[in-house]
Amino acid sequence: MSESVYKIIEMVGSSSESWEDATQNAVKSAGMSLRDLRIAEVVTLDMKIENNQAAVYRARVKLSFKILSD
Amino acid sequence: MSESVYKIIEMVGSSSESWEDATQNAVKSAGMSLRDLRIAEVVTLDMKIENNQAAVYRARVKLSFKILSD
Amino acid sequence: MSESVYKIIEMVGSSSESWEDATQNAVKSAGMSLRDLRIAEVVTLDMKIENNQAAVYRARVKLSFKILSD
Amino acid sequence: MSESVYKIIEMVGSSSESWEDATQNAVKSAGMSLRDLRIAEVVTLDMKIENNQAAVYRARVKLSFKILSD
Amino acid sequence: MSESVYKIIEMVGSSSESWEDATQNAVKSAGMSLRDLRIAEVVTLDMKIENNQAAVYRARVKLSFKILSD
Amino acid sequence: MSESVYKIIEMVGSSSESWEDATQNAVKSAGMSLRDLRIAEVVTLDMKIENNQAAVYRARVKLSFKILSD
Amino acid sequence: MSESVYKIIEMVGSSSESWEDATQNAVKSAGMSLRDLRIAEVVTLDMKIENNQAAVYRARVKLSFKILSD
Amino acid sequence: MSESVYKIIEMVGSSSESWEDATQNAVKSAGMSLRDLRIAEVVTLDMKIENNQAAVYRARVKLSFKILSD
Amino acid sequence: MSESVYKIIEMVGSSSESWEDATQNAVKSAGMSLRDLRIAEVVTLDMKIENNQAAVYRARVKLSFKILSD
Amino acid sequence: MSESVYKIIEMVGSSSESWEDATQNAVKSAGMSLRDLRIAEVVTLDMKIENNQAAVYRARVKLSFKILSD
Amino acid sequence: MSESVYKIIEMVGSSSESWEDATQNAVKSAGMSLRDLRIAEVVTLDMKIENNQAAVYRARVKLSFKILSD
Amino acid sequence: MSESVYKIIEMVGSSSESWEDATQNAVKSAGMSLRDLRIAEVVTLDMKIENNQAAVYRARVKLSFKILSD
Repeated sequence: MSESVYKIIEMVGSSSESWEDATQNAVKSAGMSLRDLRIAEVVTLDMKIENNQAAVYRARVKLSFKILSD
Repeated sequence: MSESVYKIIEMVGSSSESWEDATQNAVKSAGMSLRDLRIAEVVTLDMKIENNQAAVYRARVKLSFKILSD
Repeated sequence: MSESVYKIIEMVGSSSESWEDATQNAVKSAGMSLRDLRIAEVVTLDMKIENNQAAVYRARVKLSFKILSD
Repeated sequence: MSESVYKIIEMVGSSSESWEDATQNAVKSAGMSLRDLRIAEVVTLDMKIENNQAAVYRARVKLSFKILSD
Repeated sequence: MSESVYKIIEMVGSSSESWEDATQNAVKSAGMSLRDLRIAEVVTLDMKIENNQAAVYRARVKLSFKILSD
Repeated sequence: MSESVYKIIEMVGSSSESWEDATQNAVKSAGMSLRDLRIAEVVTLDMKIENNQAAVYRARVKLSFKILSD
Repeated sequence: MSESVYKIIEMVGSSSESWEDATQNAVKSAGMSLRDLRIAEVVTLDMKIENNQAAVYRARVKLSFKILSD
Repeated sequence: MSESVYKIIEMVGSSSESWEDATQNAVKSAGMSLRDLRIAEVVTLDMKIENNQAAVYRARVKLSFKILSD
Repeated sequence: MSESVYKIIEMVGSSSESWEDATQNAVKSAGMSLRDLRIAEVVTLDMKIENNQAAVYRARVKLSFKILSD
Repeated sequence: MSESVYKIIEMVGSSSESWEDATQNAVKSAGMSLRDLRIAEVVTLDMKIENNQAAVYRARVKLSFKILSD
Repeated sequence: MSESVYKIIEMVGSSSESWEDATQNAVKSAGMSLRDLRIAEVVTLDMKIENNQAAVYRARVKLSFKILSD
Repeated sequence: MSESVYKIIEMVGSSSESWEDATQNAVKSAGMSLRDLRIAEVVTLDMKIENNQAAVYRARVKLSFKILSD
């Protein structure tokens, strides 16, 4: 019953809107369905200027998802 | 004059909108009036998928409020 | 739906058997029913010699439990 | 014999004299008798200028006290 | 070619809207043009109640900008 | 001779018995043979209550294994 | 209203008397008036022996002061 | 009365049974009697595969013992 | 425009020459072309004695590379 | 010329007066002359109640001293 | 005698040769003479690929220099 | 079989050449033969200017060596 196992991967997502959006983009790009995803923990947040023009919000996150069910 | 004392408690608030909202919800649920509250420091941020459907933003915060005035 | 709020408290439990036991004792002493408890995160572990006789395993843990349901 | 349990709370004390004093004030304001107190661990120290006049030393401390005896 | 050097300064920006806004305000107040700025790393986030009325989101950030080009 | 390279992955194993067991389960679920495994470093330990019934010990570990031999 | 911005600088002050004194000396040497200063956070404390004779207490502090008012 | 002084040393103990055992082995190998020992704080825990055969639990601990009594 | 996503993996490279070399070896063994690689952040450095003979410098690094372009 | 080597040991000193005093006591008890000592870095500070009577200030410090001169 | 004060600034230096070189370059670019400099503490090290061609070693360092003499 | 125990000591080595050299010097000065040494973990690296003339690279390392064999 308690044998579930999770794997954790680390990604950086970005968005011109917000850090919430950046986190969502990291999840989408990892190709994980909502069914697999368990949690995205924020490791670091930053804001970058790309091409001298606009701010890009970036979120480095750890994504965990179940690989072995009960 | 300088004898003020603060107490710090730790809570996790959540919101389907943003981490700002999640922090606000933690404060509200603690039943503290704005008069008591001093600051909510972010400890960790994460995003959770609940019921395979939608993202929930969660903020773990440390709330400090004055218990002894000058 | 996503408005659940958690409170986190910090305790130190001890046991002459193991750190698992020490963690269980911290939970029991907090008077929380299993229904309330969500998770006990280990902060630090140590082993103490009390009265020059036997080892006591201690676990400092952060206990979180739901205070507002969806 | 080894079943003692401790609870840990976090407070900020202040003093115009010293960080030792600030720590003492945090303990006193918590309303704990010396009998209950076990230890006050320093988390952070700072010095604040209040009302543009004088320095106030502040100590953020974790206070632990026994809630279950052997 | 690889001799570029960056300087890093630390600032706290604030906003009544969001932590993204608070970060933007820190950058603007530093008087740095977009051309100079490279990245704003979030060190800590908090929410403060000012004048017992409204929440202010604050972001402590490290700003880096190039001082020597290739 | 000294060119060996290791890869490190992060997993969460669980067990109703102990954290030692939880660590073993993380290793087994990763499908790694004993020959590949080098070390499992504990990142965090916690205890979770699942279905309001029993404690589950969980170990978040970093597993390293050789991908290039001397 | 909430647009105030702070700058943070890092200094090491020293004193033959105490760490409180060392912190005060860091502030004075920075040439900041009490009006500008907001807070001096202790980063590290140490004690040094200079010239084989006497102890010198040193405090590494982060000083923050307002650069943009509401 | 309050002049007691402690020394702290760092060791790694190992055991094929558990991390509790590994901690006990570190203490024993240090040749310290129970009378001297005050506490063994866990710094890190890991599990190693030695000779492709069996798991060895290792505990890196800081051992403190009194060198000057009141 | 700002939707780029990075993946981060953790590796340990080694070299009998230097930590710079060890980092280069970690990158090469990961089979990543220079086009994919963005940055190798040092997590920890150590020096190991293998076979009682020579020092081996090891670098544990986090490698990030773009998986989704603008 | 630049071959000097230092050794670092960890101790806990205590005093009923102040943390500065506690640090001095750790140095004295280590039996090191002022000539040997280089620096005492504060690791942690706490205040303990011994025998339900008085506060004891304790400083855990890392002492470094030269073992090989230029 | 013990009133010396230091200021600490943070910079990132880079070099195609080594992290030692990168640290030297950070110091040179800051325009500090050897007489002013006291120490450059490494905060983080990384290796970057610039223009898909060559590795650049970067060192983020904290530079301290005396601003008030005894 | 799994009862091996290690002791860990902390040292600072220095060199005018490189941090690799500084680490080697710490090991040599500790008087440990290669047979005893297991690993030297880097804790911190810095660069110091001595006598206003030349840079000295320093490495603070934790050295571990076996004190009890299988």
